[in-house]
Amino acid sequence: MKAEIITIGDELLIGQVIDSNSAWIASRLTENGIKVVRITSIGDTREEIFDALQDAEKRARIIIMTGGLGPTADDITKPTLCEYFNTKLVFSEKTLAQITKLFEKRNFPMTESNRMQSMLPESAIHLNNSQGTAKGMWFEKDDKVFVSLPGVPFEMKALIDEEVLPKLKAELSIPAIYKRTVMTHGLGESFLAERISNWEKSLPASIKLAYLPQPGIVRMRLSASGDDMAQIKILVDQEIDKLCALIPELVFGFDEAALEKIIGELLLQKEKNLSLAESCTGGYLAHLISAVPGCSAYFEGSVTAYSYELKESLLGVSHASLIEYGAVSEEVVCQMAEGARKHLKTDYALATSGIAGPDGGTDEKPVGTVWIAVAGPKGSKAKLLRLGEHRFRNIRISALSALNLLREELLKD
Amino acid sequence: MKAEIITIGDELLIGQVIDSNSAWIASRLTENGIKVVRITSIGDTREEIFDALQDAEKRARIIIMTGGLGPTADDITKPTLCEYFNTKLVFSEKTLAQITKLFEKRNFPMTESNRMQSMLPESAIHLNNSQGTAKGMWFEKDDKVFVSLPGVPFEMKALIDEEVLPKLKAELSIPAIYKRTVMTHGLGESFLAERISNWEKSLPASIKLAYLPQPGIVRMRLSASGDDMAQIKILVDQEIDKLCALIPELVFGFDEAALEKIIGELLLQKEKNLSLAESCTGGYLAHLISAVPGCSAYFEGSVTAYSYELKESLLGVSHASLIEYGAVSEEVVCQMAEGARKHLKTDYALATSGIAGPDGGTDEKPVGTVWIAVAGPKGSKAKLLRLGEHRFRNIRISALSALNLLREELLKD
Repeated sequence: MKAEIITIGDELLIGQVIDSNSAWIASRLTENGIKVVRITSIGDTREEIFDALQDAEKRARIIIMTGGLGPTADDITKPTLCEYFNTKLVFSEKTLAQITKLFEKRNFPMTESNRMQSMLPESAIHLNNSQGTAKGMWFEKDDKVFVSLPGVPFEMKALIDEEVLPKLKAELSIPAIYKRTVMTHGLGESFLAERISNWEKSLPASIKLAYLPQPGIVRMRLSASGDDMAQIKILVDQEIDKLCALIPELVFGFDEAALEKIIGELLLQKEKNLSLAESCTGGYLAHLISAVPGCSAYFEGSVTAYSYELKESLLGVSHASLIEYGAVSEEVVCQMAEGARKHLKTDYALATSGIAGPDGGTDEKPVGTVWIAVAGPKGSKAKLLRLGEHRFRNIRISALSALNLLREELLKD
Repeated sequence: MKAEIITIGDELLIGQVIDSNSAWIASRLTENGIKVVRITSIGDTREEIFDALQDAEKRARIIIMTGGLGPTADDITKPTLCEYFNTKLVFSEKTLAQITKLFEKRNFPMTESNRMQSMLPESAIHLNNSQGTAKGMWFEKDDKVFVSLPGVPFEMKALIDEEVLPKLKAELSIPAIYKRTVMTHGLGESFLAERISNWEKSLPASIKLAYLPQPGIVRMRLSASGDDMAQIKILVDQEIDKLCALIPELVFGFDEAALEKIIGELLLQKEKNLSLAESCTGGYLAHLISAVPGCSAYFEGSVTAYSYELKESLLGVSHASLIEYGAVSEEVVCQMAEGARKHLKTDYALATSGIAGPDGGTDEKPVGTVWIAVAGPKGSKAKLLRLGEHRFRNIRISALSALNLLREELLKD
């Protein structure tokens, strides 16, 4: 079963908005055994929408469109869809009532453009949008399914999960697909590939392997499809076991595992709590940890201290150590971690201190020099990272490395 | 001058990677007067690459491809390009020497797959990659230009800026385009549209307006293209002035203006510094501010304090106020801001306290209830936000609102 995704909006073609909708939809379709063969972004014009629909329906049975359904005047999608599917816009009293109710609930005044959202193509099945005022629309033509959804991510997501996927599963027969992703930290893509090359060469032809590198993380996805789900699952899982046995110290989880969630689960399980002392990561490590719902059960708080003075006053770092070794040093990062553990009264603490760049490097400590440390009941431990020249990349890799250091420590204790 | 972007990689079609490369390239091409008419993501197969190239060259004169040039074995792009452009892979001694030098500089061992990157299509012009081992490739065919770049974002970006754009400008004649974006905070898309509808209706037909909403920010982009750059610039700028006069309190900047950069510039200019006391934003506000290079000139540090105990010990919030009003209250958020200002010894301080969700709401204080505050030389001031139910959205809007509160205060003082 093949699908294509079409995202509509001039803002995509001038690069002011990154199309994150497509990846999300593609991931949901893939999980449900539907193969996405192409993703296309086009502008807000009748001709481009027409061309893209005509091209897509030659290749795929399911076409999902997002965008072009907002309440403002730069949208052309609905009239174009009416023309393409040879239908017309009609007023939906039921939809107007739903929109009115939503605005009353939010206690917002309703605008004329909101009212216009109750004009919908006559031949479309209306899909309920639990998060907003723009309906989804489901068209059928020559055994093909076309779905048009608003581009606002949380509205689109609710429509896919609550309306589109259940309806696709109910109406079409879909083959089995099984995929699993091994998450690794600590080795770059090409070194990893070299280390596991014999295993990779021996993989059965029916299994596809893809390397998916991100700053600080390399994901390896194994997938297979076929008629017998039980059989392909055994095949893939066997290879995953072999792979993990080759690189046990690099694997931190599977599929969508995130280090910030893993350490959260470990802390909860061990009934321990955590604090942070950040310098070069500047709050990003706290943000990663606090992005996890329910983190307040184990995350007490964090101090971001750039200056020597605040490192001393808030974290109790010794003035003499700062002078002797500098802020970016093993001694200071360990004192920061120990200071956070003491002053924020937690079982564990993480600390980061480094030169994120683009400026501030020296010959001895170039941009990308970062110390990370973990302090726990058995003392503290630091690690030196030698990263590159890109500020955010350095911040992100430092934060992930600190989380992984904590993970290793929690597994040992 | 029309261009298309083709991104290659199975990881895009299964949704494990968001295609952020396309938006970045599109933005650079647009700035240089090249109109991107379509962005297409396809899989790692010979057939899909062939089809996509054939389709694209019918519509566009410039075709930029990214992906499929990594050192690992799942790549098929280079042999396919050789077939498409009727050429063959040949060994480049010069490229091998460059790769070897890069590895020596980084003190990394070189792998066989790295060595293979010196095999390049004979008819392609090689584009120098200052950030990595994969060369860019420039092909010409029937007056069309095809460029193939690696998918790693920072390598691709360096290649576009250092090699592709200079070469495109040198070899093709490109029409004038002028666009300007007004950045607003404080009113949602449909209310904003209603408020400026008369102005919008009176816009000259040659000017295009697009609303580009993001959580907490609505951007309005005006653009025009033509032969006479001076003329279209005057036309667009006149309309921008009219728009700003209609909504002065909502406009915080233009084009790529970011609130975290604006407050940084204001603080530098006034020689003042800043600290933070975060609760519901959990480090994200500190991260936004510290993502700006050079922020340590005005940003001293931050305390993220979830528990009552840390709010008291690190920020000096009164225990009685926490008990009487709760952490999410005007009283406490002002004490947090004043506490940060005092304990972190800064001129200004921002604080956030709220219920980010998805859980933790009550009837009186539902999820999305957030207090933000600014403290400065003239005292403190708080603002209540009533947001939605999405955790990260709430965190981001709270942080942006806090930055804007500081911006307003700095402009007044």
